[in-house]
Amino acid sequence: MGGIKKSHYYDALEKLELELVGMARWARARGERIVVVFEGRDTAGKGGAIKAISGCLDPRQCRVAALPKPSDDERGQWYFQRYVRHLPTAGEIVLFDRSWYNRAGVERVMGWAGEEQVEQFFRAAPVFEKMLVDDGIRLFKYWLSCDQEHQEERFRERLDDPLKRWKLSSTDVEARSRYADYTRAREAIFAQTNTGWAPWRVVDFNDQKLGRLTLIRDLLNRLPDTDVPPAPIDWPELDHEPRGEEFDRLKPIPDFPMDD
Amino acid sequence: MGGIKKSHYYDALEKLELELVGMARWARARGERIVVVFEGRDTAGKGGAIKAISGCLDPRQCRVAALPKPSDDERGQWYFQRYVRHLPTAGEIVLFDRSWYNRAGVERVMGWAGEEQVEQFFRAAPVFEKMLVDDGIRLFKYWLSCDQEHQEERFRERLDDPLKRWKLSSTDVEARSRYADYTRAREAIFAQTNTGWAPWRVVDFNDQKLGRLTLIRDLLNRLPDTDVPPAPIDWPELDHEPRGEEFDRLKPIPDFPMDD
Amino acid sequence: MGGIKKSHYYDALEKLELELVGMARWARARGERIVVVFEGRDTAGKGGAIKAISGCLDPRQCRVAALPKPSDDERGQWYFQRYVRHLPTAGEIVLFDRSWYNRAGVERVMGWAGEEQVEQFFRAAPVFEKMLVDDGIRLFKYWLSCDQEHQEERFRERLDDPLKRWKLSSTDVEARSRYADYTRAREAIFAQTNTGWAPWRVVDFNDQKLGRLTLIRDLLNRLPDTDVPPAPIDWPELDHEPRGEEFDRLKPIPDFPMDD
Amino acid sequence: MGGIKKSHYYDALEKLELELVGMARWARARGERIVVVFEGRDTAGKGGAIKAISGCLDPRQCRVAALPKPSDDERGQWYFQRYVRHLPTAGEIVLFDRSWYNRAGVERVMGWAGEEQVEQFFRAAPVFEKMLVDDGIRLFKYWLSCDQEHQEERFRERLDDPLKRWKLSSTDVEARSRYADYTRAREAIFAQTNTGWAPWRVVDFNDQKLGRLTLIRDLLNRLPDTDVPPAPIDWPELDHEPRGEEFDRLKPIPDFPMDD
Repeated sequence: MGGIKKSHYYDALEKLELELVGMARWARARGERIVVVFEGRDTAGKGGAIKAISGCLDPRQCRVAALPKPSDDERGQWYFQRYVRHLPTAGEIVLFDRSWYNRAGVERVMGWAGEEQVEQFFRAAPVFEKMLVDDGIRLFKYWLSCDQEHQEERFRERLDDPLKRWKLSSTDVEARSRYADYTRAREAIFAQTNTGWAPWRVVDFNDQKLGRLTLIRDLLNRLPDTDVPPAPIDWPELDHEPRGEEFDRLKPIPDFPMDD
Repeated sequence: MGGIKKSHYYDALEKLELELVGMARWARARGERIVVVFEGRDTAGKGGAIKAISGCLDPRQCRVAALPKPSDDERGQWYFQRYVRHLPTAGEIVLFDRSWYNRAGVERVMGWAGEEQVEQFFRAAPVFEKMLVDDGIRLFKYWLSCDQEHQEERFRERLDDPLKRWKLSSTDVEARSRYADYTRAREAIFAQTNTGWAPWRVVDFNDQKLGRLTLIRDLLNRLPDTDVPPAPIDWPELDHEPRGEEFDRLKPIPDFPMDD
Repeated sequence: MGGIKKSHYYDALEKLELELVGMARWARARGERIVVVFEGRDTAGKGGAIKAISGCLDPRQCRVAALPKPSDDERGQWYFQRYVRHLPTAGEIVLFDRSWYNRAGVERVMGWAGEEQVEQFFRAAPVFEKMLVDDGIRLFKYWLSCDQEHQEERFRERLDDPLKRWKLSSTDVEARSRYADYTRAREAIFAQTNTGWAPWRVVDFNDQKLGRLTLIRDLLNRLPDTDVPPAPIDWPELDHEPRGEEFDRLKPIPDFPMDD
Repeated sequence: MGGIKKSHYYDALEKLELELVGMARWARARGERIVVVFEGRDTAGKGGAIKAISGCLDPRQCRVAALPKPSDDERGQWYFQRYVRHLPTAGEIVLFDRSWYNRAGVERVMGWAGEEQVEQFFRAAPVFEKMLVDDGIRLFKYWLSCDQEHQEERFRERLDDPLKRWKLSSTDVEARSRYADYTRAREAIFAQTNTGWAPWRVVDFNDQKLGRLTLIRDLLNRLPDTDVPPAPIDWPELDHEPRGEEFDRLKPIPDFPMDD
């Protein structure tokens, strides 16, 4: 299916990583709070896009929020409550792997949420997001799209590749026959929640590598390009020969055997 | 500095990943709880080893615990309390990026913990670990070693490579002049906490790729090799042409420009 | 200073307690969520009013939320985040001993919050509360008032009575000289946040016992008066003589000596 | 059934409250951590004893831990994990209304825990408690006893008094027919967990008021009697007439009608 060349991808990605690292330094220095929401069909590539960003940042600064199914207690609470717990404090970046949009996405399509709940969500979500934005949180919402041909191909890969088999769930099987329902649900989400303060951006992830570059580039474009140079560190030469490891009680275990 | 060949590394790693994925399936099916502690000097390669494991597993099953500095409240609590919060429930795997051994490692070497606290820790740690093991938790402790020549080289890389600069902290500067103190601290840790129920394994990480393979191989060897086949999934052909994405309100943003 | 007679108070209170217990049974049966905010000057009687309500209810159903000073992390978060954590799940009643109104009350008067933060709060609070109410949470806000003569008398009691001395803080000393500032801050709060969906009720607590009765009566009047009879319990007679305690290893310690 | 005179009780209690308040001041000043475990049959009087202590202390210092049924996640964890979360930080006092002893008490008697789990608990509990005590936590364990005659009387009261009806659960009905099983379970607990570092104290709660006095007296006797005088507070006279409340927008609601 073609796609961009690997080497071109890694070259382009590295440049973006440099900007991400700079952006993170700025966020920490200024106490900025950044939330990025990743939504999209199964297999669209949310996880990979999140890893591309978080992989080059300090895990103590950049957290991923991938919530499990709500507990009974959580089900009884204000709908947004369990998401609020994961919002960033000053200097933090939080990447939501799926988000509060579950209600109007997977829950709606699968019939786990009633239409009244969905409507209530559509009334609440823009208000909720405006509160966060008014409080100074920088909120970005990305929708990763892919057509069914690519989705089928990726499902097939999950089915066949033992390394990816765990990614396949019974919900995925259902999702296949509801491709068009998901399209409708997404359009409703856009109609109701594409606001001035928290607009959606759709990114084509039929080519996942290209999609990641596009998404990260867009994210960086929407953040200030402020250079906060790293704090200088005084780094004198060692005044002795570098020491070796000295083991007394326990020695390293034998190396993995490389037959070469 | 040589090291193993990239292609050999990736071939070997992929085989290990397959076993890791199988092990995780077994852990989930049996409700096993697995804790892996990663300790070692700065730059030894804890983060990379953790990513090699967690990267191929379901993030909802395999969590990384990298605790920030203790808050004032935490400082007043039972020393192990804030770590206990992150222990796994049935079916989970938790990778500790540093751990309760901070007290006898970095805190001792930097003078943040008094000798009495260290002694109290040495009395408590084996008991604490025995409780977890007796409760059925599978606990593995790895010490990643590297000599100062490699450490210096990696520090230098962090200093020079803007992508890695955030990894460098003022504690690192201190750590350089205390290489031998860390050696002594580690030997004390081994002397006091290398128990039958929770032994230490030292892995040479002078070559980080090789170190990762060695560590994962050892971890897998110490876990049962039980095959739990994935649940079969019925996967019928689509009964229609694969659908395309159809956008009404919002279209995908322009792709990242690849100049080729 | 007079006040209502003790016996009359306890008679009236018991009747209200019966209604509170019935209301709690209804809340549990219907999965209702109830939030009651208690605000007012120091010494007004928030703690006593809260105890009058919570004291007759199941502590597993009716929780008191009295938040400590925010941690550094909390200070960096969305202002409402740390309060959201304490909102009720289905069937619960949460009594807030002070609340998010701190920002426009004590924080403003003491100069801990800047005017911009206060204005931001005034914009956000009605929206925040509307979201909760729209989600189905029943929200009640009470302001307990007392004049300075009574406040001084109660401060004096805290100063002189060793049982109450811990209630007196340095903030209280400050509060005395800012009585009028608190009045102004309260009027601003009413002007900005007395909404149709979450109105304020002022209750005169110059006589604290009378204030409690007034507050509870009003709260009950604003909740549905639905009778949900307790589940019947089959309660057969014991088929043997009641048993005595039989101690083998440890006997009860000697009783406290009552010299009578 | 007699019992001690109310006025004598309140006189004696007030003296103990003074000591409790002093003890709490000492605990805060010294950063002491205090845990008190309350166990005993249903209706023995755990809740009342806890209220007698917590009622006179700062709720921000003295917390009550009454855990709900474990969630599924908690059931899969290290048995003590969910209790560890509630342990005190420096300066705090935590009163456990039931505790980890559930496993060998109610869970065993009701058949919710298997004998192997109970044995595992008996091996672990003394070790767990020793770890806390070695860490400097002051741990006190009280068993409140009452014979079946009193228990029946109190169950009857809960059945008949609408104010107490919520305290009666289906577990209570079961408990009646298992009075002797509870006795046996308690004796096993004493046999296994009455250690030098965390001894049990049995207190006769057939007369609950007397029981409370006995328990509090014993607790105070086992804590140091160190006087930490309260910090002096400068308390000048007001330099103006005490102000009245002045309401602009909202007036107090009408007082509760006292017909006298």
